[in-house]
Amino acid sequence: MLSNHLQNGVETAKLIWSRLPNAEDVSDAEPDEDGVLRNDGFGGVESLDYEVIENYAYRQEQARRGKLYVWYYVGVKWFFALLIGIGTGLAAVLINISVENFAGWKYSLTFRIIQSSYVAGFIVYTVINLALVFSSVFIITQFAPAAAGSGIPEIKGYLNGIDTRGILLFRTLIGKISGSIGSVGGGLALGKEGPLVHTGACIASLLGQGGSTKYHLSTRWLQVFKSDRDRRDLVTCGCAAGVAAAFRAPVGGVLFALEEVTSWWRSQLMWRVFFTSAVVAVVVRTAMGWCKSGKCGHFGSGGFIIWDVSDGQEDYSFEELLPMAIIGVIGGLLGALFNQLTLYITYWRRNYLHKKGNRVKIIEACLISVITSVISFGLPLFRKCSACPDSDVTSECPRPPGMYGNYVNFYCTKDNEYNDLATIFFNTQDDAIRNLFSAKTIHEYSAQSLLTFLAMFYSLAVVTFGTAVPAGQFVPGIMIGSTYGRLVGMFVVRLYKKLNIEEGTYALLGAASFLGGSMRMTVSLCVIMVEITNNLKLLPLIMLVLLISKAVGDAFNEGLYEEQARLRGIPLLESRPKNLMRKMTAKEACGNQKVSYFTRVVKVADVANILRTNSHNGFPVVDHTRTGETMVIGLILRSHLLVLLQSKADFQHSPLAVDMRSQSIPIRHSLSDFVKPVSSKGLSINDIHLSPDDLEMYIDLAPFVNPSPYVVPEDMSLTKVYNLFRQLGLRHIFVVPRASRVIGMITRKDLLFEDNEDSGPVELQSTSVRGRQQGGSTRNPEVEHPLLNGLLE
Amino acid sequence: MLSNHLQNGVETAKLIWSRLPNAEDVSDAEPDEDGVLRNDGFGGVESLDYEVIENYAYRQEQARRGKLYVWYYVGVKWFFALLIGIGTGLAAVLINISVENFAGWKYSLTFRIIQSSYVAGFIVYTVINLALVFSSVFIITQFAPAAAGSGIPEIKGYLNGIDTRGILLFRTLIGKISGSIGSVGGGLALGKEGPLVHTGACIASLLGQGGSTKYHLSTRWLQVFKSDRDRRDLVTCGCAAGVAAAFRAPVGGVLFALEEVTSWWRSQLMWRVFFTSAVVAVVVRTAMGWCKSGKCGHFGSGGFIIWDVSDGQEDYSFEELLPMAIIGVIGGLLGALFNQLTLYITYWRRNYLHKKGNRVKIIEACLISVITSVISFGLPLFRKCSACPDSDVTSECPRPPGMYGNYVNFYCTKDNEYNDLATIFFNTQDDAIRNLFSAKTIHEYSAQSLLTFLAMFYSLAVVTFGTAVPAGQFVPGIMIGSTYGRLVGMFVVRLYKKLNIEEGTYALLGAASFLGGSMRMTVSLCVIMVEITNNLKLLPLIMLVLLISKAVGDAFNEGLYEEQARLRGIPLLESRPKNLMRKMTAKEACGNQKVSYFTRVVKVADVANILRTNSHNGFPVVDHTRTGETMVIGLILRSHLLVLLQSKADFQHSPLAVDMRSQSIPIRHSLSDFVKPVSSKGLSINDIHLSPDDLEMYIDLAPFVNPSPYVVPEDMSLTKVYNLFRQLGLRHIFVVPRASRVIGMITRKDLLFEDNEDSGPVELQSTSVRGRQQGGSTRNPEVEHPLLNGLLE
Repeated sequence: MLSNHLQNGVETAKLIWSRLPNAEDVSDAEPDEDGVLRNDGFGGVESLDYEVIENYAYRQEQARRGKLYVWYYVGVKWFFALLIGIGTGLAAVLINISVENFAGWKYSLTFRIIQSSYVAGFIVYTVINLALVFSSVFIITQFAPAAAGSGIPEIKGYLNGIDTRGILLFRTLIGKISGSIGSVGGGLALGKEGPLVHTGACIASLLGQGGSTKYHLSTRWLQVFKSDRDRRDLVTCGCAAGVAAAFRAPVGGVLFALEEVTSWWRSQLMWRVFFTSAVVAVVVRTAMGWCKSGKCGHFGSGGFIIWDVSDGQEDYSFEELLPMAIIGVIGGLLGALFNQLTLYITYWRRNYLHKKGNRVKIIEACLISVITSVISFGLPLFRKCSACPDSDVTSECPRPPGMYGNYVNFYCTKDNEYNDLATIFFNTQDDAIRNLFSAKTIHEYSAQSLLTFLAMFYSLAVVTFGTAVPAGQFVPGIMIGSTYGRLVGMFVVRLYKKLNIEEGTYALLGAASFLGGSMRMTVSLCVIMVEITNNLKLLPLIMLVLLISKAVGDAFNEGLYEEQARLRGIPLLESRPKNLMRKMTAKEACGNQKVSYFTRVVKVADVANILRTNSHNGFPVVDHTRTGETMVIGLILRSHLLVLLQSKADFQHSPLAVDMRSQSIPIRHSLSDFVKPVSSKGLSINDIHLSPDDLEMYIDLAPFVNPSPYVVPEDMSLTKVYNLFRQLGLRHIFVVPRASRVIGMITRKDLLFEDNEDSGPVELQSTSVRGRQQGGSTRNPEVEHPLLNGLLE
Repeated sequence: MLSNHLQNGVETAKLIWSRLPNAEDVSDAEPDEDGVLRNDGFGGVESLDYEVIENYAYRQEQARRGKLYVWYYVGVKWFFALLIGIGTGLAAVLINISVENFAGWKYSLTFRIIQSSYVAGFIVYTVINLALVFSSVFIITQFAPAAAGSGIPEIKGYLNGIDTRGILLFRTLIGKISGSIGSVGGGLALGKEGPLVHTGACIASLLGQGGSTKYHLSTRWLQVFKSDRDRRDLVTCGCAAGVAAAFRAPVGGVLFALEEVTSWWRSQLMWRVFFTSAVVAVVVRTAMGWCKSGKCGHFGSGGFIIWDVSDGQEDYSFEELLPMAIIGVIGGLLGALFNQLTLYITYWRRNYLHKKGNRVKIIEACLISVITSVISFGLPLFRKCSACPDSDVTSECPRPPGMYGNYVNFYCTKDNEYNDLATIFFNTQDDAIRNLFSAKTIHEYSAQSLLTFLAMFYSLAVVTFGTAVPAGQFVPGIMIGSTYGRLVGMFVVRLYKKLNIEEGTYALLGAASFLGGSMRMTVSLCVIMVEITNNLKLLPLIMLVLLISKAVGDAFNEGLYEEQARLRGIPLLESRPKNLMRKMTAKEACGNQKVSYFTRVVKVADVANILRTNSHNGFPVVDHTRTGETMVIGLILRSHLLVLLQSKADFQHSPLAVDMRSQSIPIRHSLSDFVKPVSSKGLSINDIHLSPDDLEMYIDLAPFVNPSPYVVPEDMSLTKVYNLFRQLGLRHIFVVPRASRVIGMITRKDLLFEDNEDSGPVELQSTSVRGRQQGGSTRNPEVEHPLLNGLLE
């Protein structure tokens, strides 16, 4: 019996935490395999769940933890949600205004020059693009390498439990914002939406740690979020805020965070995430209202992608479902191909090109910029202009390029002509999409132009993906999809002449299908598409094409983010266990892995040795009972051991355990010593200097262990273990032998205190706590379970 | 060591399942405390996870389970989602058309009669209402008692893990639909939205069991859903479909199901739920399009609550935030009061009134109907008519009551006058809400009328709640909320004269605030409000009032559904553990509860005796090793024991265990024997007759146990146990002693097979499986863990 150990002189860890009835354990703050302290389980109460790293440090916290502190804590949480919303909204506004101004200025300058010379115009256009792209790639390579790419796979990994170095730093934030402005303003085939999600996450994370310590921007009073769980909640808010800002889709943002990025979810968090998204919507709306008065330069109604198709098709007939299904299939095929091609190219880049250093990265980006400029300027030159439609024209024709609207006049001989290829190619992406989505503009584009654009832009998007600039895939995806969607729409218009068909609606469906075929999101994408088009009536159609394109795409490969995450070595735990696991037991999964363990009181030399010779991040701690049996008293983390080794405060000369029953244990560590540094690598064993004297000392690990990590019996199905692991977001599970007896069984009724009429557990609880406070060793389990022992004899 | 037991002659259960590498265990099909078999954990793979009730029955299933079967299974899942959508959509259309026709016919008849005599009109009006309500209450009391009320608390309970008797029967479905038509058509202060959610759930559940066996409506080929988990997924779809149908809010439906009803969630399910919601939207839309041509009688644009406020206020200024916050506070106060009053009244009804039998229930409902008729007809008579506004009138004035539109002429002396109280009171609720929400109708209502209506309707809603008719709280809530909202709006219009303020917008915010204050939903309510008003711009404002009203309401009591669920004895596990649990350990929670257990081979008399003398639903099964130690080999469920006792097929004369290694075990049970009957009470020990000879026989439980239920160490914090319980949706957790050693540790890397470069676990897995197939007993753990034992010496 356990109490035997307690009654005799040997102090087991059991006693230590039983003396602190409130003590939560530390399973929720365990280090990742990369040695960074992470918090994955969430054992605490939501309103006040900063993690207790060690039991006696916990006592210090108790003093601060009054009723008032709880209110302060909850208040700060909501205040942070507000700040994240405002910050992300402002970042989005900044990026959009900058991009629109750079691009607008670029196009109007080019247009002015081409009135006299197309060659000069081309040179100016190319140079401006090159300069912008160079600024972006320079910032990224020199200053913030973690800001390259979309950042969504990394954020997904972070929320799934894996830290990628540097993704949430202040410099990454700055790099992401300025890099986005350069790369999007420079006309590359990429978007600013993915980077905005990353930006939101960075803002959230920086707020969570109370600012950036490196740049002396931190404030002390905001550092209430000690636990990694709180930080991850904030990052989830930041993600949703990013999507909400990018698409002005608050509901879509919440669902994106829910579906795509987080591995786990609580409804309390959902409400906070939704609040953040709504704040973003207000900020963006306010800023756009302010810009309407012309204070933002070239920033017109553009910038934020809201493609209002409310003028478009309101109804659909049965015959249209077939072409829509075809769009879905095309989307699935092209999306899967896109994933595959980008995977190959990224793989090649990682292993060959980018190994050659930053210079190559810069040259590569600049080269792509020049190619993009040549194609987007050059191709429309070869396109014959069409005459402006005479009747039923709602928009001006022709218009100068880069300005809002259809029917761009570019290299046309007559005044009332327009260049349909230039309308989509020689334009900002937002305007191009708006033009592709536009209703009441039947026959604006020729099939030839659309096909040319599709082939060219698809290739550019594939090649551009993975360059060392911040790059989102949403807008390129929408561009590609809406092009073939409109193409299908053109055929449908020609085929079913009588129907009220708008090519713009087909373009929208095409966009949805390509995103579905590439990113494989479902609900969130659907809602985002509905929100950006502001037309709920298209929901069933969007859903239809998404269902088809996702199914088609899934037949070939995984989603874009999953593929990229795998390529980058981010081990995402999927939501469903593999079939293989059904055939395995827990024991087989841990397999021939060596379990290194510590005894309760351990020599410092042994600790250092074990930490040096293996890379495990958690170690079981065992103790011996009087009868010589071993008993597992908990889990100790590598990072906590490193803190202990570095501080040396707990070293002792005697190999005997400290008597934890005496109140005289000096409090040598504060909670914050064990808190994970967000933006640094953390300690390494090689950083710690231990003198020969130190090595001869002992350390009692009992106060620092997580006394009750989750355990599974050795022969449990791995599927079950996987679900446990993922649902609770664990880091370590102990595989233990099958139990020899059952002490009790917990059912639903035992967890419902109010409704339990006999209130047995509650009464027992109070007596037990009393018993514990008297020392814990006076309890007699035989009395508490008189029948159990009789039955088990 | 475990292998010792295997090597000697004693057969432990370990061996039995180790011979079947595929064998999932049965933890996912455990009976509830009320004795009904439920499935709560989800250990399986989503795509093919019908539960394996016992190991050798599993083998039978293997044959059927080809690749083709998987496709069939997934196909049926989606086909069912489609059917649920169509079914719920059609049910919603049926209810709406019926209600609108009954109500429209009632109002037009009454209006024709009051041209000559108000007394005769009143009598006709009252009698029609009475007849409708009587039909409703008669159906409910005589035929489908489970269909009374909104049904949402019961469905929430079902998805949380508690069966309420009869809520998902075919008769309940019929009763709910016809009862709703009567009660809503009869003009009571209740809505049809809650009942629609219940209707959707019923349709889903009936589909899941392949029709109703009692009424011979079942089909064999649809009975693929053996597991309760599949059924619960379907019910989740049904819930979302109900909300989607009630409010034509597909996204809102998904979020409602996510936030309000389910305890756990998977993203694969989310997509299916969303699909169902979209199907509902299409069905409802198609039906409404069909009705537009006038084929549906009085069913105009009404029926489905879509209150388009797109003509309303587009912008809001800073000064308006204060009155909006006030609306939030009022909503929180009135909502909490509503919850409290309905709680008292329901309590009183349950304990006094409804104990007197069905006759009392019928009289009560009829009495309330008469009172409602008197108030809604009588009060407007006392109200002085106002002159129609001269200028800027977009709608006709006056109109006959019951027709769509504002400015109802009722008991007015002059022709161009209208009765503002009759406009909202003597009208269908949908039209009343539409009138309250209407824009461009400033000064239509007097404060006096609104206050009168508020007080009267609030009282009626409180009194009507809990009568024996199907009753939703959404529409009454919207009515109450929009009334005080409009009242506040009127003051704001008077106060801030210059602003572009629409009273209708304030009415909408009022509605949101009351629902928030009463139901305490957040995200889903927000989205539903946005979807029914079709105006995304109001989202931040709706969120603001919801935040305030929920916070204010939470200060007083719990949400309406939680309160009602508690009153009905449905023990919902909340999403956050109680603070109390932080101070408790697992052992204390199971407390002085007696653990009844079985040995592996047990006498039938003992089984019968234990089942009779206690009401536990799960029992540990222990076996003895050669050395006399006990070992827990699994969990056996009461329901499975009852099946075994009833069939008697596994009884044996010898007290020795069956040698499970021989392939000759006869397959006496099929999987379906153990499947829970959805719509019956299940077996009881008293139904089983056992002869004295039977009682002397033995039964070997090993093949029927769940070999690896989840275990927790005795001193784990109850907070952690609670999270485990809720996150995995468990029924039983074994509390076991602290482990003596750690066999291995599972980390993230062990669960990532593809990315594991050394692929250790995969290799090991294949060898292990081979080892197992050779008999399992030849493995030597000492070889597999050579270092572990060295370390643990």
